Amino acid sequence: MPHIDLPPLPGIAGLLAGYPLTAGPLNSLAEALLRGPSPLTPAQRESIAAYVSRRNECAFCAETHGAVARKLGHDDRSTAGPADADRLMGALLAIAEKVRLDGRSVTTEDIDRARAAGADDRAIHDTVLIAAAFSMFNRYVDGLNTLTPQDSGDYERHAGALAEHGYLQPPR
Amino acid sequence: MPHIDLPPLPGIAGLLAGYPLTAGPLNSLAEALLRGPSPLTPAQRESIAAYVSRRNECAFCAETHGAVARKLGHDDRSTAGPADADRLMGALLAIAEKVRLDGRSVTTEDIDRARAAGADDRAIHDTVLIAAAFSMFNRYVDGLNTLTPQDSGDYERHAGALAEHGYLQPPR
Repeated sequence: MPHIDLPPLPGIAGLLAGYPLTAGPLNSLAEALLRGPSPLTPAQRESIAAYVSRRNECAFCAETHGAVARKLGHDDRSTAGPADADRLMGALLAIAEKVRLDGRSVTTEDIDRARAAGADDRAIHDTVLIAAAFSMFNRYVDGLNTLTPQDSGDYERHAGALAEHGYLQPPR
Repeated sequence: MPHIDLPPLPGIAGLLAGYPLTAGPLNSLAEALLRGPSPLTPAQRESIAAYVSRRNECAFCAETHGAVARKLGHDDRSTAGPADADRLMGALLAIAEKVRLDGRSVTTEDIDRARAAGADDRAIHDTVLIAAAFSMFNRYVDGLNTLTPQDSGDYERHAGALAEHGYLQPPR
């Protein structure tokens, strides 16, 4: 049961519905970070979000963003071939893991490895901010003990809507 | 030296100037959380932000928000007397520390203690989201190794502007 009274919606959905003044900026941040202009594809960015959430053991966020990444397509890998894309993602996920643990632990060697794999400044920036943002979202969702659906169909439906429409709230 | 090329501004200021697409939602989130409607005063909310930043050893954020909290006034304590306010802040900072470490570590006992000290649902919500948001801001600032001024006068000037004008960017 959530620690505070919320609309009966799973995970962050109950928080966004119950606290609309902060929901606006939070949704805008997710949209800009995960769907806005970036050298990383939406699928790559959702994969970073899912990875950080899984490492933080935030079940709702990990299941949701893992499903969104799958729906947006593992083959959606910019112009790089699969091997190059895997090398790039390996270097970016290593940075994301450092950021998740402690921002100060990211080294110039971590950055150099990402650049050697094809990352530019914006790809590095977006990786760090996605990892930082999910360090927030995971804590918001779990710190208030929101509802975690057990049915994988719930995540599939929610992820389908996010994959198709993104994160901006519908007009009210 | 920052890990990516940024305008020569300290801490998050360089990131906000260099990456305006995400700066908009980040500033809006800070404004809503730290200045918007809440049962907690702006000084109390800045104190939570400074506390989390200090525990995360993010020097730029800790110095900045500590100075903003001082400028907004320790006496700015809603209608409660100082002793009650201290008891409330103690319970809220304990929740913030749990959220900082791992959102899942917040217990119903932590929440009950805050309620007994006068916190309502929104005060608890705002505390959790401030602690979560500074878990993000700290990682963003340190994960990209932004500039940390050594001169306390720099923080005082920056904090003075934030205390007076808040977090919304000036129109461009």
